[in-house]
Amino acid sequence: MSRFWSPFVEGLEPYVPGEQPKLANLTKLNTNENPYGPSPKVTAAIGAALGDELRLYPDPNADSLRQVVAEYYGLAVEQVFAGNGSDEVLAHIFHGLFQHGRPLLFPDITYSFYPVYCQLYGIPFERIPLDKDFAIAVGDYTGINGGIIFPNPNAPTGRLLPLDEIRRLLDVNTETVVVVDEAYIDFGGESAVTLIDSYPNLLVTQTLSKSRSLAGLRVGLAMGSAELIEALERIKNSFNSYPLDRLALVGAEAAFLDQAHFERCRSAVIEQREVLRAELNRRGFESLPSAANFLFSCHREHAASDIAAALRDGGVIVRHFKQPRIDNYLRITVGTAEQNARLLACLDAFLAA
Amino acid sequence: MSRFWSPFVEGLEPYVPGEQPKLANLTKLNTNENPYGPSPKVTAAIGAALGDELRLYPDPNADSLRQVVAEYYGLAVEQVFAGNGSDEVLAHIFHGLFQHGRPLLFPDITYSFYPVYCQLYGIPFERIPLDKDFAIAVGDYTGINGGIIFPNPNAPTGRLLPLDEIRRLLDVNTETVVVVDEAYIDFGGESAVTLIDSYPNLLVTQTLSKSRSLAGLRVGLAMGSAELIEALERIKNSFNSYPLDRLALVGAEAAFLDQAHFERCRSAVIEQREVLRAELNRRGFESLPSAANFLFSCHREHAASDIAAALRDGGVIVRHFKQPRIDNYLRITVGTAEQNARLLACLDAFLAA
Repeated sequence: MSRFWSPFVEGLEPYVPGEQPKLANLTKLNTNENPYGPSPKVTAAIGAALGDELRLYPDPNADSLRQVVAEYYGLAVEQVFAGNGSDEVLAHIFHGLFQHGRPLLFPDITYSFYPVYCQLYGIPFERIPLDKDFAIAVGDYTGINGGIIFPNPNAPTGRLLPLDEIRRLLDVNTETVVVVDEAYIDFGGESAVTLIDSYPNLLVTQTLSKSRSLAGLRVGLAMGSAELIEALERIKNSFNSYPLDRLALVGAEAAFLDQAHFERCRSAVIEQREVLRAELNRRGFESLPSAANFLFSCHREHAASDIAAALRDGGVIVRHFKQPRIDNYLRITVGTAEQNARLLACLDAFLAA
Repeated sequence: MSRFWSPFVEGLEPYVPGEQPKLANLTKLNTNENPYGPSPKVTAAIGAALGDELRLYPDPNADSLRQVVAEYYGLAVEQVFAGNGSDEVLAHIFHGLFQHGRPLLFPDITYSFYPVYCQLYGIPFERIPLDKDFAIAVGDYTGINGGIIFPNPNAPTGRLLPLDEIRRLLDVNTETVVVVDEAYIDFGGESAVTLIDSYPNLLVTQTLSKSRSLAGLRVGLAMGSAELIEALERIKNSFNSYPLDRLALVGAEAAFLDQAHFERCRSAVIEQREVLRAELNRRGFESLPSAANFLFSCHREHAASDIAAALRDGGVIVRHFKQPRIDNYLRITVGTAEQNARLLACLDAFLAA
């Protein structure tokens, strides 16, 4: 501990993202990136913005992007917030909406950044166990709380909570903010955005990193009542006036305007997911039902850590969480047919050894 | 106040950035952007990175960019931190290094984001008056404190604090962090980076928004001892693992590698600054000595607010701060010869009226 650090810094246990290896020729199925590239209209829009105008600040309010997203979802601009990736958006949410001195509730198995944000902003929290099938049991989210957050579909399980269950949760939790983190919603779920006008305490977050194939561009969104969005704007404008650069702004906008590309890619991912599920099943795996672009799978005979190590030796990386209840599962991103074939070939070699 | 907000949100008074107007044909001399575009090598590097790889996350540690900056300044990689614009870097500094329950010291006339960060993170602060010539008097920064921060050259005054004065300050303030915010240093000052190895409590921040002509790309830096940089890494990794997108990373790196373009642009700005100073002087202005890419000027006969309004009517925008001691000054960004000529023509029309 340095005497120069703010005292809480010593106690921080930062989030550990999935490895971003610098080796070439790896088949990278560990961080849920989209296996298909972004819309050519995205790269064209960014290319057109590449020039002397980079000397000028971007629009601090991201008005044009927010307008496009608002139209896409049938919202008002004041109901849309844009940030530098959904991780930044989530950080502002924890800071601006969850500091009530009462515990924030989230699942015991979920996005592992949530407890890190709690540490960063001094927010108490309570982990609510998923049921035995790894599903969120909304009836368990009824106590006194300072807010509720969960991904839908949940990560790393991939399980979807149906919209009527979310409505049931919102009907009994009206006094604190409920955040539905929809990083993976486009791969098989129905967005809770349609509930926003009925529930002023509902906030929906999304990212362009997954279904829009733009993890490299860093754009995230929050959508909710104008009163919730105003809190995020106040935090943002007290933190960094210009979180989105000129290229990210035009690229994100173009992504929302190319619906055909979006539909093609997500359909291909969904199709490959079910092919991969069947192939894994034939090799002794069981996978949870997934509405995401990954499978959460455990083998009947082999330890997940052994399989992950063998895959890595074969040049295929998947994610293994050394964590209670799920330490025998692997989270496997759905790749292209070719990537999935390489994964399966690697698995076959391991199983035959 | 919404019952859903964290209580402190109500009291936030966010930073107000200079206007980013959407009107065309304005001569924009209000936010200290570089009048010259970025290096063609920057746009070429970004163009080369535009493709399917945008589907992949960027390097969360910005290793390649940090290596280039480290080599540029003769530092180790562990002495360099990169963030999403220097405003984000500053936010992390306030959060991670200034929360000691003792007042942070900064000048009474300075970057107006500093008190906003203090509000955001609950940091007490004390404003130390500039002397009568608007210079920082380092002898006044001697009391018990939780840290010290000032821009050098200062903004919006443009005045430079010589390196031996900074050394004098560091010699008597060894127990808390001293941040020298060098947003404008390349336009006429000597960087305090050379003092880093002598003072483990010194942190130097820079931005690519000004001398590197990349305000639209959002890249900022902090440089200091590895122990200070580690605090920023811990905050960053508890906030957003991937603050810099793929395009910003390669663009920033290319900017540091094109020294010739950098030298050409800053020389042109410095030359135009002194031409503009003389022309303003001929029209009844007095300007403070400036080591930045702007002049801080007051007219002997006309109120700054009247001049700013007349310029705006003529399509030229400059910055006017309605703040004690400086409310009769204008902060005028140095433009190209053509932009400056338009400013002067507008002024002539106002003065002749």
